[in-house]
Amino acid sequence: MQTAPGKLHNSGTINELAKTDIHMTQETINAAFYRGNKSFQVEQINATPPADGEVAIRIAYCGVCGTDMHVYHGNMDARVGHNRVLGHEMSGVVEAVGTGVTSISRGQKVVVRPLDHCGNCPACNAGHTHICHSLKFLGLDTDGAMQEIWNVPAHTVHVLPDTIRMDHAALIEPLAVACHDVRLSGLNTGEDALVIGGGPIGVLVAMVAREAGGNVVISEVNPNRLAIARQLGFDTVNPSEEDLPAFVNERTGNKGADVVFEVSGTQPGVDAMTACASTKGRIVMVAIHASKPNIDLFQFFWRELQLIGARVYEGEDYEKAISLIASGSIEADTVITDVSPLSNIQAAFESLDASPTALKSLIQVGDVS
Amino acid sequence: MQTAPGKLHNSGTINELAKTDIHMTQETINAAFYRGNKSFQVEQINATPPADGEVAIRIAYCGVCGTDMHVYHGNMDARVGHNRVLGHEMSGVVEAVGTGVTSISRGQKVVVRPLDHCGNCPACNAGHTHICHSLKFLGLDTDGAMQEIWNVPAHTVHVLPDTIRMDHAALIEPLAVACHDVRLSGLNTGEDALVIGGGPIGVLVAMVAREAGGNVVISEVNPNRLAIARQLGFDTVNPSEEDLPAFVNERTGNKGADVVFEVSGTQPGVDAMTACASTKGRIVMVAIHASKPNIDLFQFFWRELQLIGARVYEGEDYEKAISLIASGSIEADTVITDVSPLSNIQAAFESLDASPTALKSLIQVGDVS
Repeated sequence: MQTAPGKLHNSGTINELAKTDIHMTQETINAAFYRGNKSFQVEQINATPPADGEVAIRIAYCGVCGTDMHVYHGNMDARVGHNRVLGHEMSGVVEAVGTGVTSISRGQKVVVRPLDHCGNCPACNAGHTHICHSLKFLGLDTDGAMQEIWNVPAHTVHVLPDTIRMDHAALIEPLAVACHDVRLSGLNTGEDALVIGGGPIGVLVAMVAREAGGNVVISEVNPNRLAIARQLGFDTVNPSEEDLPAFVNERTGNKGADVVFEVSGTQPGVDAMTACASTKGRIVMVAIHASKPNIDLFQFFWRELQLIGARVYEGEDYEKAISLIASGSIEADTVITDVSPLSNIQAAFESLDASPTALKSLIQVGDVS
Repeated sequence: MQTAPGKLHNSGTINELAKTDIHMTQETINAAFYRGNKSFQVEQINATPPADGEVAIRIAYCGVCGTDMHVYHGNMDARVGHNRVLGHEMSGVVEAVGTGVTSISRGQKVVVRPLDHCGNCPACNAGHTHICHSLKFLGLDTDGAMQEIWNVPAHTVHVLPDTIRMDHAALIEPLAVACHDVRLSGLNTGEDALVIGGGPIGVLVAMVAREAGGNVVISEVNPNRLAIARQLGFDTVNPSEEDLPAFVNERTGNKGADVVFEVSGTQPGVDAMTACASTKGRIVMVAIHASKPNIDLFQFFWRELQLIGARVYEGEDYEKAISLIASGSIEADTVITDVSPLSNIQAAFESLDASPTALKSLIQVGDVS
C-alpha cells in the first residue's frame, strides 16, 4: 500500500502496524534536500519506520514559509546546513505509529505542530514549552515535510476532521501563528485593529482578527498585496500614499487602534505601531526584527502602551486554526496562490522569490487525500 | 485661625466653613514662584477661598520631584512659564471646602492625586482618566503645593489616617507611582525583580516590589545611590563593574528576571532590560525616554517578552501608597534625605541639584501637623 498513498487503510491492529513498519524500511521515497546556494535536489531515499513514540506521516501538501525562503537565500546555512529537508507547513495522513503511540491511528488526517522542547529549561518548567530555551524546530533543526514520509514525535501531532481538504490543511501551521498573535493581543469584539504588513502572515492575522470581531485595517505598501487584501474584503491603506496615523485616527474617532500587529519588520512599521495605537493600546510584535530599531518609548510611558512579543503557537492555537479551516471561516483558496509538485520544488522557490503577487505557495508532496 | 496653622479645628459646620472662606480672602500666604533660569521667588499673595467643588489645603510638606528639577533646569518653560508655583508631592490639612463638597471635612489630613482629566476624550471614555488626552497635571499645568494654601478639585483629594506623619505623607505621591508600576507588572510573590536605576523612584519601586513578595535587585552605577540601596537592605549590582545579565542569570538559575523595571532612562538600561528578562518576562517602562533608543525587538519575539508602559497612578495606587506609609512598611526616614523651609527653596533646589547623595528632598511649606 505504500506505493498507493491515496488508498490508505483507515486503521490497523498493532500487528498490521508492525508489518507496515517493516514494509516502510523497504520503501523508497522522494525527498527534497536543500543544498545551499538557492538550490534543492530531489533524491530518492529509503523510508525509515517510526521509532518508539514517533508517528510516520505520508505528506500531502507542504507550504513554503518565509523562513524557508530565508534558508533558500542562504541566510540560515549555519543552522540548517546543506543536507536538510525543509518544510513544516504540512498536511498528511498517518502511515504508521511507533511503539507506545496509542492516541493516534493509521489513516487519520493530521498536521504537525513542529516544536520539540527539552522539558528541562526554565521556560519548559514554567509551562512555556513553545519558547523552550533549547527548542528544536522540526523542518529546520531536523528534517522536515518536503519528503513523502515524515517521522515526527507523537506529541507534535494534531488529528484533523476527516472532512478537511488537505490543501487547505497545509495552512493550519501559519494560521496557528495568527491565532496565537490574536489570542495574545486580547482582541475583543468591536475593537479597532491595525495590521502593519499585508504579507501571508499579516493577511492571516487580519482574517483571525476579523473572525474574532475586530474592525480590521491592513496597512501595506505593495500594490499586489493591497489588491489581495481588498479582494478578501479588508479595508486597506497604503502608508506611502496616505498619512497612516491620520487615517487611523479618522476611522476611530481620534482614539487610535486598540490593537496593532507589527508584521512588517521595518523601521517605518515600528514608527507606525506607536503612532497608531490608542491609549492603553496593545501592540503585538509578530515580525522578526534582525536589527534593533529605534522605538518611541516615550509613547509607551505617556499612553501606557503595551508591547507583546508573540512567537509560534501553543496547542490551543492549533486547535483554533484547525476549527477555522475545517469550518471554512478562512478564505483558503484565495490565500493559496500556487501549488507545485515536489519534483518542481526548485522552480517553485524561484517563482515565489520573483513573484509580486504570490501569497502562499504549496508543494504537493504526495497524492494523499 | 489662619495665622496659627498648627492649631486647626477638627471639623466645622457649613456656616463655619463659609466664614472660613471669607477669612481666607483676607489671609496673606507665602508662595514660591518659579521665575525661569533656575530661580525661585517666595512672595506673599492673598489666599483665595475654594471655588465650588474645590478644597483648600494648608500644606505641610512638599517633595521635590524629578520633574520639578526638569522645570528648574529650564527644560519645561514652554509648558509651565515663569509665573508658576510648582509642587505636587505634598501633604496637608483641609482648611476649607467649597460649595458642593460633602465627603471631605475641614481638619482632615489629606494628599492630592494631582490629575485633572477632561472627561470627554477616548481615554476618559474608556475609564483611563489618568492618561486623559488633555490631562492637566496640578503643580505643572496649574499652580501647585509650594504655597501655604492650595486649592484643588475635590475629586483629587485622598483622606489620610489621623496618625500618619505629615513628612512621611509627602512621599505618598511618588510612592503611588511605584505602586502603579508594581501593580501593572503583575509581580507575584517569589518572582525575581530587577530595578534598573536606583534613584528616588527606583528605590520606591524596589520597596513596593519587595513588599509584594518579589526577590529584588537594584542595578545602579552611582556609588552613593548603591550605598543607600544597600542600607535599605537591597541586593545591588553596579553594571559598570559587573556583567549585569550574567549576574541576574546566576541569581535566578539561568532563568532571568520575571519582572524588570526600567527606571534609568538610558540606552544601557534599555539594552539591559531585554537581556535580563526571563522568557515571558514583563518589562515595565517607568522612565521617560526623550529620545528613541534602539531596542532588541528580536528578544520580544523570541522570548515573548512584554513591555508595559506605566504613567502616574490611579486611585487604588494612592490607597495602596497611603496604607504602606501609614503602616510604616516603607523606610520613609531613609528615603527623606533633606528638609528645608519654603523660605529656603532656592538653596534647596541648588543643593539637591549638586548633591550626589540626596534621595528625596522635602520643602516644609507650613507648620502643619
